[in-house]
Amino acid sequence: MSRDLVQKGVKRLEWAKKHMKVLEKVRNELTKKKSLKGQRIGMALHVEAKTGMLALTLREAGADVRLASCNPLSTDDSVSTALNEHFGLPTFARKGETKKEYYSNLNSVLDHEPDILIDDGCDLISLVHTKRKKLLDVVKGANEETTTGIIRLRAMEQAGALKFPVMSVNDAKMKYLFDNRYGTGQSTLDGVISSTNLLVAGKKVVVAGYGWCGRGIAMRMSGMGGNVTVTEVDPIPAIEAKLDGFAVEPMMDAIRDADFVITATGCKDVVSERHLKVAKDGCVLANSGHFDNEVSKVALKKLSKKKRNVRDFVEEYSLKNGRKVYLLGEGRLINLVAGQGHPVEIMDMSFSIQALCTRYLLVNHKKLENKVYDVPKSIDEKVAKIRLKSWRVKIDNLSQEQKEYLSGWSEGT
Amino acid sequence: MSRDLVQKGVKRLEWAKKHMKVLEKVRNELTKKKSLKGQRIGMALHVEAKTGMLALTLREAGADVRLASCNPLSTDDSVSTALNEHFGLPTFARKGETKKEYYSNLNSVLDHEPDILIDDGCDLISLVHTKRKKLLDVVKGANEETTTGIIRLRAMEQAGALKFPVMSVNDAKMKYLFDNRYGTGQSTLDGVISSTNLLVAGKKVVVAGYGWCGRGIAMRMSGMGGNVTVTEVDPIPAIEAKLDGFAVEPMMDAIRDADFVITATGCKDVVSERHLKVAKDGCVLANSGHFDNEVSKVALKKLSKKKRNVRDFVEEYSLKNGRKVYLLGEGRLINLVAGQGHPVEIMDMSFSIQALCTRYLLVNHKKLENKVYDVPKSIDEKVAKIRLKSWRVKIDNLSQEQKEYLSGWSEGT
Amino acid sequence: MSRDLVQKGVKRLEWAKKHMKVLEKVRNELTKKKSLKGQRIGMALHVEAKTGMLALTLREAGADVRLASCNPLSTDDSVSTALNEHFGLPTFARKGETKKEYYSNLNSVLDHEPDILIDDGCDLISLVHTKRKKLLDVVKGANEETTTGIIRLRAMEQAGALKFPVMSVNDAKMKYLFDNRYGTGQSTLDGVISSTNLLVAGKKVVVAGYGWCGRGIAMRMSGMGGNVTVTEVDPIPAIEAKLDGFAVEPMMDAIRDADFVITATGCKDVVSERHLKVAKDGCVLANSGHFDNEVSKVALKKLSKKKRNVRDFVEEYSLKNGRKVYLLGEGRLINLVAGQGHPVEIMDMSFSIQALCTRYLLVNHKKLENKVYDVPKSIDEKVAKIRLKSWRVKIDNLSQEQKEYLSGWSEGT
Amino acid sequence: MSRDLVQKGVKRLEWAKKHMKVLEKVRNELTKKKSLKGQRIGMALHVEAKTGMLALTLREAGADVRLASCNPLSTDDSVSTALNEHFGLPTFARKGETKKEYYSNLNSVLDHEPDILIDDGCDLISLVHTKRKKLLDVVKGANEETTTGIIRLRAMEQAGALKFPVMSVNDAKMKYLFDNRYGTGQSTLDGVISSTNLLVAGKKVVVAGYGWCGRGIAMRMSGMGGNVTVTEVDPIPAIEAKLDGFAVEPMMDAIRDADFVITATGCKDVVSERHLKVAKDGCVLANSGHFDNEVSKVALKKLSKKKRNVRDFVEEYSLKNGRKVYLLGEGRLINLVAGQGHPVEIMDMSFSIQALCTRYLLVNHKKLENKVYDVPKSIDEKVAKIRLKSWRVKIDNLSQEQKEYLSGWSEGT
Repeated sequence: MSRDLVQKGVKRLEWAKKHMKVLEKVRNELTKKKSLKGQRIGMALHVEAKTGMLALTLREAGADVRLASCNPLSTDDSVSTALNEHFGLPTFARKGETKKEYYSNLNSVLDHEPDILIDDGCDLISLVHTKRKKLLDVVKGANEETTTGIIRLRAMEQAGALKFPVMSVNDAKMKYLFDNRYGTGQSTLDGVISSTNLLVAGKKVVVAGYGWCGRGIAMRMSGMGGNVTVTEVDPIPAIEAKLDGFAVEPMMDAIRDADFVITATGCKDVVSERHLKVAKDGCVLANSGHFDNEVSKVALKKLSKKKRNVRDFVEEYSLKNGRKVYLLGEGRLINLVAGQGHPVEIMDMSFSIQALCTRYLLVNHKKLENKVYDVPKSIDEKVAKIRLKSWRVKIDNLSQEQKEYLSGWSEGT
Repeated sequence: MSRDLVQKGVKRLEWAKKHMKVLEKVRNELTKKKSLKGQRIGMALHVEAKTGMLALTLREAGADVRLASCNPLSTDDSVSTALNEHFGLPTFARKGETKKEYYSNLNSVLDHEPDILIDDGCDLISLVHTKRKKLLDVVKGANEETTTGIIRLRAMEQAGALKFPVMSVNDAKMKYLFDNRYGTGQSTLDGVISSTNLLVAGKKVVVAGYGWCGRGIAMRMSGMGGNVTVTEVDPIPAIEAKLDGFAVEPMMDAIRDADFVITATGCKDVVSERHLKVAKDGCVLANSGHFDNEVSKVALKKLSKKKRNVRDFVEEYSLKNGRKVYLLGEGRLINLVAGQGHPVEIMDMSFSIQALCTRYLLVNHKKLENKVYDVPKSIDEKVAKIRLKSWRVKIDNLSQEQKEYLSGWSEGT
Repeated sequence: MSRDLVQKGVKRLEWAKKHMKVLEKVRNELTKKKSLKGQRIGMALHVEAKTGMLALTLREAGADVRLASCNPLSTDDSVSTALNEHFGLPTFARKGETKKEYYSNLNSVLDHEPDILIDDGCDLISLVHTKRKKLLDVVKGANEETTTGIIRLRAMEQAGALKFPVMSVNDAKMKYLFDNRYGTGQSTLDGVISSTNLLVAGKKVVVAGYGWCGRGIAMRMSGMGGNVTVTEVDPIPAIEAKLDGFAVEPMMDAIRDADFVITATGCKDVVSERHLKVAKDGCVLANSGHFDNEVSKVALKKLSKKKRNVRDFVEEYSLKNGRKVYLLGEGRLINLVAGQGHPVEIMDMSFSIQALCTRYLLVNHKKLENKVYDVPKSIDEKVAKIRLKSWRVKIDNLSQEQKEYLSGWSEGT
Repeated sequence: MSRDLVQKGVKRLEWAKKHMKVLEKVRNELTKKKSLKGQRIGMALHVEAKTGMLALTLREAGADVRLASCNPLSTDDSVSTALNEHFGLPTFARKGETKKEYYSNLNSVLDHEPDILIDDGCDLISLVHTKRKKLLDVVKGANEETTTGIIRLRAMEQAGALKFPVMSVNDAKMKYLFDNRYGTGQSTLDGVISSTNLLVAGKKVVVAGYGWCGRGIAMRMSGMGGNVTVTEVDPIPAIEAKLDGFAVEPMMDAIRDADFVITATGCKDVVSERHLKVAKDGCVLANSGHFDNEVSKVALKKLSKKKRNVRDFVEEYSLKNGRKVYLLGEGRLINLVAGQGHPVEIMDMSFSIQALCTRYLLVNHKKLENKVYDVPKSIDEKVAKIRLKSWRVKIDNLSQEQKEYLSGWSEGT
């Protein structure tokens, strides 16, 4: 069984490797120079094939790597086992961790006294700042992968609580423009249709949040023939959603006749008690945000008289009002719980940013303050150029004359 | 293990039942009147949850039903087992049948001496006309589900070889407009992204055939951000594809830089030796047509020096020219092999047509000739009206005056 | 002034000529053989540049041609004048004809005692069958261009009233698949935005009718970011509209918050008194169907206290309920009244069918009955092949083996 | 004639007024407080109906306003005349100005010694900084409307040449997200199809630049069925274009088989001599960027042996290589030259920003440095809220608990 699992994991890692051409270039460069030699790196990411390739890349570049999961339900056990048993890279992750196991695993990563942290959602960084404060002397800096983590980190910075520099990998253009939008779009769709086998075409699909993730989901659900309604708290993206041809409604109106509700906000209680009370019978609820509090499970529990599993990753809640609603993947990121995470080529870009930011932190950490830093433009551009080259896509170059024109101002009508 | 399998199958059947609201109405009507009382029905369809619900429906309406698969690789074992063990409905199907098992299963269905056949692809009907000719005295008529089967049946009719009436369920509007287009579109996409975890956005996706299935696939691949090229043999759909914004090329040109090739033609050797020789390194090949001969496996075998499984449902062929290509699901209908078949609500409509055509055949078979018959308009409209009602969608009605206007001719400018 | 007009018309005709590559091929063939030598042809079509090229083509092929308009408001005066004065081809048409002038012009065409009629909407054919019955001895047959005309002609045939054969040009695939869909789609959009300068993105656009024209309009309005709702009287296209991602509502619901309502049904009173009473303040009403009775002008007049022109092609009706609604182009086909009709390349295909059907009628009229005839498949295919060739688009050909496979039935799983 | 023109202009202004609901709110507020009392405002914008409403708004708020055009070919003469003759607001603009007239008109505006400038493209501001330097003592600040102007202004700021504060109206979210994208998208399409009557569906449409304008054009051309190819000089938007499903090519490759080329880059010589040499016969060239140098008219002249007007706004260049290419609107912004500019509701938002920034400048100019300033977030949000309210669109509000959650960091998994 374990052997089968290892073999499956190895295959998945190989498949990922084959399609991560940008990371391959980056790996070759880092490895040649042994750029991360002697560094200990503690990672808390979704443990699946693409992440595995990042971990192996960092190790090839000279680092000593440990990997835990950043979510109790997103681990691909085959990959976790293969990394451990086949590649000898210590992982601390299993699909379906209890909260206790989850934190125990994070602590196992921290026990290694890492120089650099790579986090997704800020639980690992937060742990260092609360229960593992001694490590503040050891950690040189961290990378943060996702919007939710960045929201938390900016709050920490604001409060003067942040004790080492953090690279906002999430805010690199080559990350959020692609990972959050096209990645989340495709993988969320995959998770929803795989777990339900339901038709999207003609259905009312409510997407909560029209940030980069939300618009990726809306775009793909619409591309499948869904009739998309967007909910927002910010008027400007609300107007964008409307002009993109979608309906815009408050959740209280939207959910009344929603076939699917998918949250991607980074906020909690987006679907709360009052919304659930008026949800349409048969409504399917899913979340693509980082934490499992966007759809309130507290409210679901309170409102329902019965809960049962009706398919893999589908819980049926029989509400006291006689209706039934369906929560996918326990309200955790549906694209990882019921799918295989973002498409390989997307993570190829995101994780190339991760690898280059790791090197950047090591080289520059002494100069950096305890702040959240934007990824340097040069890293974004480096990754973009490798990406285009790997696809053999050519673009135009500005001539000298054009450059001068753009930096001049006297030439007019 | 078997108990787990049964339980999984039961859940899947229940989930399908919950979302097959049209079939529910039809079932209620047929059951009330015991419309199929005492009839033996032999089915060869893809054995998965929605098909299970059709079989159970026919049984509730009074029939004695046996079910085999119409494809060696499309069976959902949990459903097959659950039908047998939990519901006592005899099934003869397992995922991964050999050709011998496949035909043995069809024969088991025929051993029951069915009054009515329900076929998908015409293998069952063909068997009766060749090796089981005695049954020609028994069979009152048949339904055929798919384009490929209809092509074969029309050829039989043309050749005077058809020996009982066949309802062309495939050509009912409520079937081909939805099942072939939106059903195939979503389920093919599901199969391709589930089995590969690859990004569709920005990829060159070649769709072979711009019939109802092909345009469903093209529409959905484009909806995922794919850059779609269509190949055709008929100039009129080729022009439609072009005006729908897609590129149109012969396969020899198209495959040279294709990331994905998906066939849906009903013809064989659509991707043949000469095409495979020039296919791009890394090209992913999939088929959504009925038979596994659209991408030539003979040619693949001939051209390659090595073949290995690299992921579930993904075979890597190392060609002698140094390139690698990937065949999904052994070239069998990818939406059933690597997915869960069409979305529930789609099969709800298709199988309601099936159930009503079965009754129609029983009532009318004596009046019918040995021909392929169109589904009566009244059945199409009945299903359409139930569908709209179940969705609570209202439409307009023509007033008496409008009806007269439409049937008159004197009123002009 | 007239000279300017002639010059403008000549330019428009030249521009059309340059982009009508299919008609050029057809013209060369017909002209070489003088296929229409000595025939008198009476035409009633929308008199604009593409129609002018058809008329000139028929003349080059040897015919004696007269041209009136099939609509009082759709004439391009520059083209009408140029045909008359520059090319010496008699036209009887002017933008803004009274009803009396309109019929007088049709009669002028008939005074010529035409052998063949080319009609659009059936007014010319109808006139021959009612007030000009003597001509029934002269006319050999007719072509009909549009859905509305075909509806009337089939009613005539049904009633035994049709007295010569009519080619249903409208039902040629190379016509309705392209002209009705992509032609109407683009030209209706053009008419609506040119006449209003209003934004489509984010607006509720109600499209009445989901036939070929309606779906063209829905597709393009959606492509501009509009939020489309479809109204229908037939449940099957209603379901298609829904699965294409559009809302489906009865007109009474749809119009309450509609920003635009566009009719394309071929029926009258689609927007009638009861609908207008609940229309949203500011609602813009447009029609793309053949006659100006789809939006009821009788009802508009009855319900309003004031009417005034507020822009070219925009009438403001101040309703007694205090709201204002805006009727574009007096409710006549907006794509011709406020636009320039279908794109050139679309009419290139439609009018090539017209030219070839004219020859077909002359050759075959003695063999034909007084019925509405489908365009022979060979004409459709001829036009399709020329179209592809002119675009230099290549497609695949079936091999002999594939042809045999498709006509056989024994090969199965 | 002039009376007709005035009347036409008045109608157009009234139509714009009716649909500029955001500006109405802003006007009411500014007028009530006479916020601009006694100020002289010099404007150089495209002189058409929506601009007219901005000018009248500023006057109602107490200002003394003069208006010239920012482009020699974009003036709507009916509006210019109506403003002058009917509303008594001095305009200096006519469609088809020579370069000399153009600058003379700008000077007429400056002769009025304006306190505030409202510019589009930076010609007016530039003139003050070069030939009218005395006015530097008078001008308190300026607003700049467009990307091209901002590029010039930032170059001026960089060079220390800027002598008063400028509000970058272009960079307000409520401007560039909508005006540049949906506005340019729809109006460019309108200009192209109105001037050519050519089909977009199935055509290769090359869009140069994938900034906000370029992506609006690409989105709409694709929405019309066009097959879009994007050219870029920046790798990141190039990757976005690719993942949005478009082809990405250098112009040298793209133009070889392009049916349409549309530039929107803010740079010059985007289509230059070497590109024109390989352009496809029949290629249509259009520009939506601010200046008429994106398609090189110098190169066109050099390469061609003959040039003639073949339709309104269409010049045919017969190249020495035997091909013909067509330049629309003399290479000036096609959406204004051959269309009616952006849809009303779009300019409603942009010009509300303009009006509010004018007040902001007056109140704050003493505190501001000689820099390019972002529009304050409060102005963006104010306009957004009015917009939603005017559409009666409601959105969600964050609860207190949600706000705290978003500003906290301790809550995790």
